[in-house]
Amino acid sequence: MSFGPRDRSALTPLPGGGVCAPTGVRAAGGAAGLKPSGRPDLALVVADQLSGAAATTTTNQVRAAPCVVTDEHVAAGQARAVVINAGSANACTGDVGLDHARATCAEVARLVGCEPGHVLPLSTGIIGVTLPIDTLLSGLPDVHARLERSESAASAAAEAICTTDTHTKQVAYEVSDDAGSCRVGGMVKGAGMIEPAMATLLGVITTDAPLTGAVLRPMLRQAVQRSFNRISVDACGSTNDTIVVLATGTAERPPGLAAVQAGIEAACADLARMVVEDGEGMSRVAEVTVAGARTEDDAAALARAVCASVLFRAAIHGADPNWGRVLAALGASPVRFEPARVEVRFAGTTVCRFGAAASFDRDRLATRLDAPVVPVEVHLGQGDASATMLTADLTPQYVAENAYYTT
Amino acid sequence: MSFGPRDRSALTPLPGGGVCAPTGVRAAGGAAGLKPSGRPDLALVVADQLSGAAATTTTNQVRAAPCVVTDEHVAAGQARAVVINAGSANACTGDVGLDHARATCAEVARLVGCEPGHVLPLSTGIIGVTLPIDTLLSGLPDVHARLERSESAASAAAEAICTTDTHTKQVAYEVSDDAGSCRVGGMVKGAGMIEPAMATLLGVITTDAPLTGAVLRPMLRQAVQRSFNRISVDACGSTNDTIVVLATGTAERPPGLAAVQAGIEAACADLARMVVEDGEGMSRVAEVTVAGARTEDDAAALARAVCASVLFRAAIHGADPNWGRVLAALGASPVRFEPARVEVRFAGTTVCRFGAAASFDRDRLATRLDAPVVPVEVHLGQGDASATMLTADLTPQYVAENAYYTT
Repeated sequence: MSFGPRDRSALTPLPGGGVCAPTGVRAAGGAAGLKPSGRPDLALVVADQLSGAAATTTTNQVRAAPCVVTDEHVAAGQARAVVINAGSANACTGDVGLDHARATCAEVARLVGCEPGHVLPLSTGIIGVTLPIDTLLSGLPDVHARLERSESAASAAAEAICTTDTHTKQVAYEVSDDAGSCRVGGMVKGAGMIEPAMATLLGVITTDAPLTGAVLRPMLRQAVQRSFNRISVDACGSTNDTIVVLATGTAERPPGLAAVQAGIEAACADLARMVVEDGEGMSRVAEVTVAGARTEDDAAALARAVCASVLFRAAIHGADPNWGRVLAALGASPVRFEPARVEVRFAGTTVCRFGAAASFDRDRLATRLDAPVVPVEVHLGQGDASATMLTADLTPQYVAENAYYTT
Repeated sequence: MSFGPRDRSALTPLPGGGVCAPTGVRAAGGAAGLKPSGRPDLALVVADQLSGAAATTTTNQVRAAPCVVTDEHVAAGQARAVVINAGSANACTGDVGLDHARATCAEVARLVGCEPGHVLPLSTGIIGVTLPIDTLLSGLPDVHARLERSESAASAAAEAICTTDTHTKQVAYEVSDDAGSCRVGGMVKGAGMIEPAMATLLGVITTDAPLTGAVLRPMLRQAVQRSFNRISVDACGSTNDTIVVLATGTAERPPGLAAVQAGIEAACADLARMVVEDGEGMSRVAEVTVAGARTEDDAAALARAVCASVLFRAAIHGADPNWGRVLAALGASPVRFEPARVEVRFAGTTVCRFGAAASFDRDRLATRLDAPVVPVEVHLGQGDASATMLTADLTPQYVAENAYYTT
């Protein structure tokens, strides 16, 4: 019934540090002139030495050039640097877009002193706009010159990757068990075009645990599956979604794999929640749990169906315990269940029992639903599996933001 | 590339008449007191004699009681009467709901003088609210007493089935070929919770052609497939969607089956378009055609994916030719295609060619997109199949309407 790792005993949150929390990682952000506003738009995350690396990129058939190149480069399981630009998604840009992504990697490699194949490129911004490659390349030396391991450098990088985000999103944990300790840090951006069935948005996770790409890959996949793949702002999948993880191996006495896994899962879950909390135009989060399912996949698919319903999300905005919309959304899913066994709770109050209306004080409940986070629980009565998914409410502001501005 | 039947040569639109256009059909509408507003909420459509009948009901797993009973009663292919109430959907109401639907049929049968099994019940309104059955039953005699074959009676029935609709939706055609002629009429209601993958909303089609249930069933299925199943207001499927067709067989010299089929398809297509045009809070219709697909099913699935995208629908509201959102929505579909071959046109202007930006005058195009109907064409370059789907734009008004009022 929770979001993120069930066992957090190895984890201690750090007050700051983001991607620079682990040893052996430097970061920087700056303004290269890619955003018309002149705001920061270019970020680097660089490991002091070649590191274990893994990535998950969008499952959308329309894949941005940086996703293609990141997949190519990360296949060997190693990386030194991640370069991220905002202002242009470099998606639907044809062969020119691939050339631009490779030219970006080549310039970062020259500055850092590594192979171009050890640089992972990420882009975010408007689809179909050609990357102003000369502007980007000429901005790289300045950003590279600012690289350092500090809270302010991590924050500068986190700021430079934002688009419609209203604030930066960072996380940092100390991870320790009997064997030793390490750190996990991360940053993420994303506020719109966020859909659950894929890798989702842009994010960088760092750790100083000594992990190879082969170990990192399944670790990241599991962490993303239960975090970024379980949030939805608008059920719209992006062409650019990418999460990268770098493991520098510079921790002096690292903890065991289970503790590191918990750290990476917690970082992903925390960052995923921040994305929903900063969803475009949103006013509150719905935390939708489907329990009593036959399998976790069934539970996740049904929770996703509820989160994708614009009518449900509008009801959440209106603090309306409209369980009829929940049942209609569940019923439209291909996952089979028995409607007559369904129970639905809004903020702990049972509003539907045996698939029909339960008696409750509507006015009193509505007052409690006017809150930053609204838990919605569906009990199917068919098994023991459950899954929790987060979504933002649908507001007139979201529509206005996406109708009157090209994003 | 069109919506509705390709051959309309046998069809002549009639200025009015709705479900009463064909001979042998009477209708009535009245206020039984089911709507708190006191507005009309109860309608009857009665054939003078036992008629051929077919129906398509929701594919949602959560099926309203009237859908269950309509399916039972129409299985034999015959019906005399359709009874429709607004104000309560009689969905998620358990066994009591089934009892209420059957009691309604029994009372209509008593008034009309037929078997209860020849009455088809349809309901629309809020999910999970128990039907005020005594109010409904006591209102039936008055509505029955008003039954007549007239334009005003058809309009009264069409008005009584409305919920958030802003106006009634009716259609009538004269159908004639060398063999003879008949009429097709119809009415429909629906403005929200309209999703394309099912039978959709409530509607009644009538004709005086002599057709058995066995002939009507595939005819209705094909007509619904290319009309009501190809519209979307909010991609939210209802628990109550039902389209019923009655064929009285009272036409003196009826036309051939192909002409009747065209008439039924045209009636369904016209009514489906009216539903989108009256979509909750909408300001314009997007007519999305996917062409150059391998199969019509592929084309329809991709058109549906575009119409389900809230980002695309918000862009349509903003008169923004945002083809990047079209490609992102297509790419998230499981239907395979080659992004590098995709061409997208807004209102006839090519905005994307070979999956990348085409050059066009954005300001000039935006002016033309500020129109009641915006054609959006996607050419895949993979085959000869195409499908057209209609959706309403997403507006702040839609969200407000669905956030602040329980519907």
